[in-house]
Order: sequence, then C-alpha cells, then structure tokens
Amino acid sequence: MSNRILGIDPGLTRCGAGIIELSNARKVSFVDVHTFRSSPEIDLAARVGSIASSIEQLIVSHKPSVIAIERVFSQSNVRSVMGTAQISGAVLFLAHKHSIPVALHTPTEVKAAVTGSGRADKAQVGFMVAKILGLAEVPKPADAADSLAIAICHAWRSFDAKVQSGAVGTTAAQAAWHAAIKSASKNK
Amino acid sequence: MSNRILGIDPGLTRCGAGIIELSNARKVSFVDVHTFRSSPEIDLAARVGSIASSIEQLIVSHKPSVIAIERVFSQSNVRSVMGTAQISGAVLFLAHKHSIPVALHTPTEVKAAVTGSGRADKAQVGFMVAKILGLAEVPKPADAADSLAIAICHAWRSFDAKVQSGAVGTTAAQAAWHAAIKSASKNK
Repeated sequence: MSNRILGIDPGLTRCGAGIIELSNARKVSFVDVHTFRSSPEIDLAARVGSIASSIEQLIVSHKPSVIAIERVFSQSNVRSVMGTAQISGAVLFLAHKHSIPVALHTPTEVKAAVTGSGRADKAQVGFMVAKILGLAEVPKPADAADSLAIAICHAWRSFDAKVQSGAVGTTAAQAAWHAAIKSASKNK
Repeated sequence: MSNRILGIDPGLTRCGAGIIELSNARKVSFVDVHTFRSSPEIDLAARVGSIASSIEQLIVSHKPSVIAIERVFSQSNVRSVMGTAQISGAVLFLAHKHSIPVALHTPTEVKAAVTGSGRADKAQVGFMVAKILGLAEVPKPADAADSLAIAICHAWRSFDAKVQSGAVGTTAAQAAWHAAIKSASKNK
C-alpha cells in the first residue's frame, strides 16, 4: 500500500493535481504535479472529460492511497463554482471507481495547515509549499501549488489523527511535544 | 446507430434517468426510466460514485446516441446545487468516456417543449410526459418524469433542427404545416 496522496484543486479552466509521499515520521516529499487545462472554446463534456481522463491516468500510474480534494464553496463567482463542482464530481466518481478513499478539506483548513493562518494569501501558500517540500522554486501556477498544499494538509491532519489514536509511533521530539502539550493543558 | 436519447435530471439525493426512442416521423416512444437515490448518511464519493455507476450501466446496456442533461442553475438552494453540479460533472465525464455527444437544456426549455409553457409546474410536466409517451400513469417521482421530459425536449429540438436543415424528410402533414408557416410569414 503506497503512502501517496493525490491533492486536487478542482477547476474547469485550470485544475491542479499534486502528488506527495508521506513517511512515518510526518515527513512529506514531492512526487509529481500537473496543471490540467481546458479551453472555454470546446464543449463542456470535452472539458470535464479531458481533465478527468488526465486525472485518471495519474491515479493509475501513481496509485495514491487517498485523494484529497478542496471542498467547493459557493461564495465566489457562480459560473466558476459550477465548473469546480462538475470537476469535483468527476473526481469523486473516479475515486469510487478505483476504490480510493476521499477526503475534503476547506480552503481555510489548507491555508492554516501550510502557513499557520487560515487567511494566508496565494503567495504565502506557494512559498510554504516550496519550503515544506524542499523545492527550489514555487510551483506555478497557483493551482499547482494549491494542489500540493491540499495534499500536505491531508497528510498532516491524517498523521496527527493516527498519532492521537496511537496507530503510529512518534519521534522523540514529537513525544516530547505531546507530553508538553498534555502537561500544559493539565496546568490550565 | 440507435436513436435512443438518455435524459438525465441530475441530483445527489434523487437522480432521474429516462430513455426514449425517436422515430423519423418525430414520434417518441418510452424505453426505460429509473430514479437513482443516495443516502446523505454515506460519504460524498460513494454517493456520486453509486449514482454515476448506475448511469454508466444504463449507457452500456442502451447505447444512447445522445445524453441530454438538465442545465444546472444556481438560483436555488446552494447545497443542492453543488450536489447537482457534481452529478452532472460525473455524467459529462461518462459521456466523454463513451464518446456520446451531450446536450444541455434549461428547465424552461424543457417545460416549454412538453407543455407549451416555460412556467409549467411539475404536475403539468408529468401529465404531458405520460400523454406524449402513451403511458397509463404519470412516472413517479417527479425526477423520473423530468428525465423523460428532458429526453423528449432534446428529441423534438434536434428533429426540428434536422428538418430545417433538410437532413430528414417530413410527413405530409408536416410539409403542409411548414408551407403554411412560410406563406403566413410572406403575407405579413
């Protein structure tokens, strides 16, 4: 079973798809990233179909153990939200078809996970993604960086959940940190 | 090449899927109809996945020549619109995968096609679908009737477009009607 996480920043014009690997010591490493595009000139089925087919090829070649998708919200432009929801629907279907679990994370959760602030801007997210994964440059465009941020967010949240449930061991530093947190909350 | 039209009324809780056959004389006949449901209790990927898989089975067994989908609008409840867009995205992907053309029709176009009024209510649409297809009862629930209405709307619009382009012949009655329309517009 791979420990690869496929992060998807769904979109009809540009869709980010980033793959990272999570080690047992909460370390994440870069595997692959793509930005799939479709032209507004072609018909809607071809747009959704070509992006989803490209994502399916990534699934087949990388065999991720989980797919993390940015949760769609409707606060922004209605037209772009529809396209985003349609791509996310196609990816949800692909995950089900390939029996891969799906996790949804909100934009705020993703920003908070990689920058420490749920209100971070795109530049900050890109900068931190490059730092965390040890990349020489910030992945471009923002959709590519965002897809990696979604994957990192999922990796860390799921790792922390496993530690809390005792399912994985912790490093000495992590054990010390957990002990400090426990002691601090007792002394409150 | 079949002349079967698969109409889809996309939805996450209930998704209507109706199949009709169009003859060369603008006649439509009933083939099959289903309402696929998913429980809000299960996770989103399983909901989208199970409905889309059921639709894929219909595509494989009936081999429709076109898939007509109700165009998603965002005026109603935001949560239900997201689910509707996600199902429509999965169906768009399936159409692309099986190389079947897609047509989108608005709710107003569908109502106008089967009842003569774009503001008809659900009961009127169901009543007319039963009349047009010669069914003893109105298909239930409304999602089932709506999916057949979408298919009928597409059948008639595409047939009329073919007649206008001279791609199909007309019956004597239709020829007389077209001549009357032409003469009326000349005399205006």
